[in-house]
Amino acid sequence: MPEVIFSVDQSKSMRDQAVPGHNRWHPDIPAAAMVRPGDEFRLECRDWTDAQIGNNDSSNDVRDVDLSQTHMLSGPIGVEGAEPGDLLVVDILDLGPVPQQVGKVSGQGWGYTGVFAKANGGGFLTDYFPDAYKAIWDFHGGQATSRHLPGVRFTGISHPGLFGTAPSPEMLASWNRREQALIDTDPGRVPALGLPPLADNALVGTATGEMANRIAREGARTVPARENGGNHDIKNFTRGARVFYPVYVKDAKLSGADLHFSQGDGEITFCGAIEMGGFIDFHVDLIKGGMEKYGVTTNPIFMPGNVEPRYSEFMSFIGVSVDHDTDTNYYLDATVAYRRACLNAVEYLKRWGYTGEQAYLLLGSAPIEGRISGIVDIPNACCSLYLPTEIFDFDVRPNMDGPVRKDRGQCAVSS
Amino acid sequence: MPEVIFSVDQSKSMRDQAVPGHNRWHPDIPAAAMVRPGDEFRLECRDWTDAQIGNNDSSNDVRDVDLSQTHMLSGPIGVEGAEPGDLLVVDILDLGPVPQQVGKVSGQGWGYTGVFAKANGGGFLTDYFPDAYKAIWDFHGGQATSRHLPGVRFTGISHPGLFGTAPSPEMLASWNRREQALIDTDPGRVPALGLPPLADNALVGTATGEMANRIAREGARTVPARENGGNHDIKNFTRGARVFYPVYVKDAKLSGADLHFSQGDGEITFCGAIEMGGFIDFHVDLIKGGMEKYGVTTNPIFMPGNVEPRYSEFMSFIGVSVDHDTDTNYYLDATVAYRRACLNAVEYLKRWGYTGEQAYLLLGSAPIEGRISGIVDIPNACCSLYLPTEIFDFDVRPNMDGPVRKDRGQCAVSS
Amino acid sequence: MPEVIFSVDQSKSMRDQAVPGHNRWHPDIPAAAMVRPGDEFRLECRDWTDAQIGNNDSSNDVRDVDLSQTHMLSGPIGVEGAEPGDLLVVDILDLGPVPQQVGKVSGQGWGYTGVFAKANGGGFLTDYFPDAYKAIWDFHGGQATSRHLPGVRFTGISHPGLFGTAPSPEMLASWNRREQALIDTDPGRVPALGLPPLADNALVGTATGEMANRIAREGARTVPARENGGNHDIKNFTRGARVFYPVYVKDAKLSGADLHFSQGDGEITFCGAIEMGGFIDFHVDLIKGGMEKYGVTTNPIFMPGNVEPRYSEFMSFIGVSVDHDTDTNYYLDATVAYRRACLNAVEYLKRWGYTGEQAYLLLGSAPIEGRISGIVDIPNACCSLYLPTEIFDFDVRPNMDGPVRKDRGQCAVSS
Amino acid sequence: MPEVIFSVDQSKSMRDQAVPGHNRWHPDIPAAAMVRPGDEFRLECRDWTDAQIGNNDSSNDVRDVDLSQTHMLSGPIGVEGAEPGDLLVVDILDLGPVPQQVGKVSGQGWGYTGVFAKANGGGFLTDYFPDAYKAIWDFHGGQATSRHLPGVRFTGISHPGLFGTAPSPEMLASWNRREQALIDTDPGRVPALGLPPLADNALVGTATGEMANRIAREGARTVPARENGGNHDIKNFTRGARVFYPVYVKDAKLSGADLHFSQGDGEITFCGAIEMGGFIDFHVDLIKGGMEKYGVTTNPIFMPGNVEPRYSEFMSFIGVSVDHDTDTNYYLDATVAYRRACLNAVEYLKRWGYTGEQAYLLLGSAPIEGRISGIVDIPNACCSLYLPTEIFDFDVRPNMDGPVRKDRGQCAVSS
Repeated sequence: MPEVIFSVDQSKSMRDQAVPGHNRWHPDIPAAAMVRPGDEFRLECRDWTDAQIGNNDSSNDVRDVDLSQTHMLSGPIGVEGAEPGDLLVVDILDLGPVPQQVGKVSGQGWGYTGVFAKANGGGFLTDYFPDAYKAIWDFHGGQATSRHLPGVRFTGISHPGLFGTAPSPEMLASWNRREQALIDTDPGRVPALGLPPLADNALVGTATGEMANRIAREGARTVPARENGGNHDIKNFTRGARVFYPVYVKDAKLSGADLHFSQGDGEITFCGAIEMGGFIDFHVDLIKGGMEKYGVTTNPIFMPGNVEPRYSEFMSFIGVSVDHDTDTNYYLDATVAYRRACLNAVEYLKRWGYTGEQAYLLLGSAPIEGRISGIVDIPNACCSLYLPTEIFDFDVRPNMDGPVRKDRGQCAVSS
Repeated sequence: MPEVIFSVDQSKSMRDQAVPGHNRWHPDIPAAAMVRPGDEFRLECRDWTDAQIGNNDSSNDVRDVDLSQTHMLSGPIGVEGAEPGDLLVVDILDLGPVPQQVGKVSGQGWGYTGVFAKANGGGFLTDYFPDAYKAIWDFHGGQATSRHLPGVRFTGISHPGLFGTAPSPEMLASWNRREQALIDTDPGRVPALGLPPLADNALVGTATGEMANRIAREGARTVPARENGGNHDIKNFTRGARVFYPVYVKDAKLSGADLHFSQGDGEITFCGAIEMGGFIDFHVDLIKGGMEKYGVTTNPIFMPGNVEPRYSEFMSFIGVSVDHDTDTNYYLDATVAYRRACLNAVEYLKRWGYTGEQAYLLLGSAPIEGRISGIVDIPNACCSLYLPTEIFDFDVRPNMDGPVRKDRGQCAVSS
Repeated sequence: MPEVIFSVDQSKSMRDQAVPGHNRWHPDIPAAAMVRPGDEFRLECRDWTDAQIGNNDSSNDVRDVDLSQTHMLSGPIGVEGAEPGDLLVVDILDLGPVPQQVGKVSGQGWGYTGVFAKANGGGFLTDYFPDAYKAIWDFHGGQATSRHLPGVRFTGISHPGLFGTAPSPEMLASWNRREQALIDTDPGRVPALGLPPLADNALVGTATGEMANRIAREGARTVPARENGGNHDIKNFTRGARVFYPVYVKDAKLSGADLHFSQGDGEITFCGAIEMGGFIDFHVDLIKGGMEKYGVTTNPIFMPGNVEPRYSEFMSFIGVSVDHDTDTNYYLDATVAYRRACLNAVEYLKRWGYTGEQAYLLLGSAPIEGRISGIVDIPNACCSLYLPTEIFDFDVRPNMDGPVRKDRGQCAVSS
Repeated sequence: MPEVIFSVDQSKSMRDQAVPGHNRWHPDIPAAAMVRPGDEFRLECRDWTDAQIGNNDSSNDVRDVDLSQTHMLSGPIGVEGAEPGDLLVVDILDLGPVPQQVGKVSGQGWGYTGVFAKANGGGFLTDYFPDAYKAIWDFHGGQATSRHLPGVRFTGISHPGLFGTAPSPEMLASWNRREQALIDTDPGRVPALGLPPLADNALVGTATGEMANRIAREGARTVPARENGGNHDIKNFTRGARVFYPVYVKDAKLSGADLHFSQGDGEITFCGAIEMGGFIDFHVDLIKGGMEKYGVTTNPIFMPGNVEPRYSEFMSFIGVSVDHDTDTNYYLDATVAYRRACLNAVEYLKRWGYTGEQAYLLLGSAPIEGRISGIVDIPNACCSLYLPTEIFDFDVRPNMDGPVRKDRGQCAVSS
């Protein structure tokens, strides 16, 4: 087990750790620790919300998460010798929930998937499911089950939702400018079109004084993915994956967290993965001048690991870029098309007795694949969603007689 | 080998066949043949363009394809007993290029991938590659190589790009209405936002007289995917797949073609698969009342086959919904995100010596996967593209020294 | 489609073809056709028995197969420039059952799996199933079903059972010497320990006169696998596979046949694959001096194709090298261990209502995997057998209530 | 993390633990702990040798392992309510090397593969490699590298080599009788044909007094696999696997250990896996009367997990049941055939610069597959070995020019 170079006491907020992390991107957040190319090391991470989400049957806690303090990151980790223009090679050696440790809090044997309320960021289907919901998942080694989703058991496709290097000052300025321009096109929209810098609730690592204030004022929110990596929510950053991050500042300054026990492509419920605090083990190296050598300037590239859970039979759902509720056609819009594929899958699962909310939570967290199938056949983009049939303990395939509809309970709801 | 119930003489246009097919969707196109539930049968298909694309080094033929006569379909095949509300179960038993036959034209041992010019429909990267290009692929059993893409050999993920059932009159009217509304938002756009009904070059099967005229006037273009299936371009409709199509008219009336020897997710070059004439073998069955039973109303559902080519190592590229050329942020736009992932992959391949056009053609035709990774992290959608490393005869992975750049020729271009 | 360089009229015995093949290995059998490195070509093949096996419910035809004329091969194909010491690179481009052709016999839409009687060669479980049995399989594209095995449908793992290069005179002499030595240890055994050269029923290609007589006298039987390849029955010689055969004589002289629509590891019923006549397409090349370069002297090496049917859930059975019927322990004997694994699988399937004969036929033909698990734990070898659960249309996994035993009919039996 | 119900202090021998395990099979060894159906729990395990194998460059320690005290097991674990005739359902939730723990010894970041000397049990190729050898593997999350095998990196296929239920008195008597009968056929053989009961070095759990003596006298050695499970060395008992063990005694009494970070089929070097101490997490349940219900009487059945490392390209080697060194033919002997396949693979790897010993160690530990390909083609069994090409950091496929032979060092040897 590699040495822990960023440790977290899971009974406390990230704000109260001996060495705090951060929830804004900024080049001037000081490195919390330094490593060298070739090193292997461990980071401990808080759940992305840094809140106390309960193992209970109420989604009030998910409803009340404060987005101004998410996503909470561990780091930055400085890499000796890294300079702008290099590629930082990051091997994901291992990750998992908080392990049980002698003399500390007990390990985390569970995680949760949440649907955010429309008023608080919403989710991919927020027009159809505007309230907050939650499902609790119990971990059994690499598999998960949920009392809120009976009849389902699957192997998690565990990965970090969010890691990235620090932006340069120029890049940071560009982010803030272009996102504000987007917000300005519809400033009052709910949910908002973007999240601008916000000093309230900013956590800026070990920076102090005027620098801390400046970082809080300028720092980009950690919610989205951007050129530096960030909140990719790519379910294929699994154990054994190798990621090549662009380096924009001296020492690279790698930060991240948002560990997922599992997630479906799209992470459609916003808090849609199985969220957990935990640990992640890395090996790092450098390709000097690698950005130019390989043409990797605006986003990382990566090679997925080869131990993703393997399935061979799927129920697949299709959507095209038409909003059938409003009878409106969109031009090659993959977002609309994937939303329809998701809604079609929800409808199918309801015929077997799940509520729509349960189906929505399942599609967010199970290892489903979301593919862009056709993106050129004017005017309709076509997307498809692949749901493994083996994760159900009943035969979910269509048959001549129709589905046996059964009461399958309900997820956690708000009071 | 099942009986051929729709045959094609590949030396002639679909217009000149004994029983012609059609290139518009309309409920009144007469069935070209009837089958019963439980039957197995073969359809022969023209290349989707119904044009004479040459095995040569000029892309003039691709440049000059007339979209008013595409996509050309075989059918309709009526299924006895099918009624609106049923699900038509279609098993894809086999498909392939035109086989060699005694006393007929020789078999087709090659196919092509084309980039359409911006003035003629364009492609997914048309702002970056506005001209027409072409690559010729030679078939070696299930594998393909191209003199226009040296260093690459892969197993095709063969599938039909386009099959569907006939729309009801009401559904057809809805299509025409909503697509015209979209076109009206920017009527002069190049490429066009949509393709409205067009009597010119319409082929209406065996309909005659006034009915033929009406079909030509009203019939929906066969270019996009819609509720009835249509031009999905889902690369996973492979041998062994089972598709459940909604039935909207008596006898279901299944039609299709656009056979692909291989295709990458998105079919990004518009004519992006490896296109071919050929045959397809089906088994059909019915689930009576299946649309309501399974909640399948607006799109087919399907189960992919289990003989897709298997790869275990990938180079993966990421895009987020930012247009870096204009420094513009888009709101959770998966189309923009996937385009950036494609552009990032093109850039990477150029470092190894391919031209941008070659890279674009490769991403359209090789069995790459395009995934919607994160679709909720305001404001940036994140998509990812998976390119199997084994298809190259050199080591395409990043290393410390940088890529060995080599002259890898060029694709077919226009004169 | 490559040119047919060895053609077969399937309505006639191999003996009556315009250019006959052969059923003995000998360096002096003349090449039936010549090809050059880089060529692609097609061979047509008879079913290995060269007999008229019927699509009926009697196994009398399987019972009466005459082993003195099996296995019947197409070839030899000479490769220009091949010399002893080279490696012959053979790509398996495609293979399949006899296609339907204009003006010729109709295509073959079915195949069969046979259990040989103990008195006629037996099979792997011949002490438990001493009689002859048969199952007829219907082909649906790449999938197979059988009226003799209801409840089962699977994708075939199609491959040639038998291909090889001609032996040198010295190698042939060695084969005959060592096999006779084995036979001499128990000459009267039923089934026999080996099959010595036998002039009766020998077919020697286009050789004539005294040479024909000599080949018939000396030629090695084509039943087993040996240094030159031969009857490997390796189910993973699938489409897309590349095989490197040692070359022992001038022109290499590649011959083979015994095409299998599918087969389980071990081909345990002797005629255990789904047997068929058909065609196979090859590409060939040479590595000059490759035997020494790569240390490939006593057996071919190969790279399997990547389109084998993919399964992700299995019922697995274990055997150790103990014969429980006689309470006898064998020393690290993988053959005994695999036999027990097979018997355990048969027993399990019987609980679901299949007869033992049906189960035996299924294990011979379905894409099961047979693995040598432990071969060093004194004194017991351990083997394991993997049966994909998806091939059944019922849930074959153990549950708390026990299997629902059902009448599942019977295979073809002898009168 | 489940509760530890059998704990091990890795700084001490199993003999000196607070609650010792055992190294003999006997129905009367008292349960070390009791669990109930539905429970999840953790066992800690010693390395199977219970010896201090060093992370160094000498194989003296492997050479000197005393087989009279192996394999050392954790347990027995009694399952409340289990009775003879039941099936014990065991889910393998997780396993791994000794984790780092506060206040205890540091975690185990490495393991070893050993070749046993011919005089001390030997290995599968002991006639070719009669001495003792060793390779040290460093763990990087789920991947392993070795300074003794440069150029190789692979994902481990982690599993327990040995678990089983206690035998009934009658079964134990049968084992001892039949194994002695085997030994008696060649009592002086080196290595021995079997290992009879041996009171010396027997460890009998918490049994005391006369019962302890009786167990030591009668108890079956834990080296081989038998009806109760035992030392299967099946590499596919991975995370997520479900095993159904026959129950022969009250409370079932599950015991085991011999954790492997990785192993190739056959575990051909005897100590051929990557051996480690560590932990394993189980969930257990019961199918009452399951042995009769499912016909599972003489060996467990199981369902492998779905997170085994995935590879898609292999170099494959073939062997038939001929000993080419002595020019001797064996009758359908899969053991001989697999040995030849292994020797062919060794020969191939030597051409790239590995020593034979290195190649042998690699084939024992990497996730290679060993398959019984043909077992009926008189007189030659045919086996095949699949080596994933991706585990090498150079291109190990044959090419026209021949392999680049390079000095690749050497494994640990004896002084």
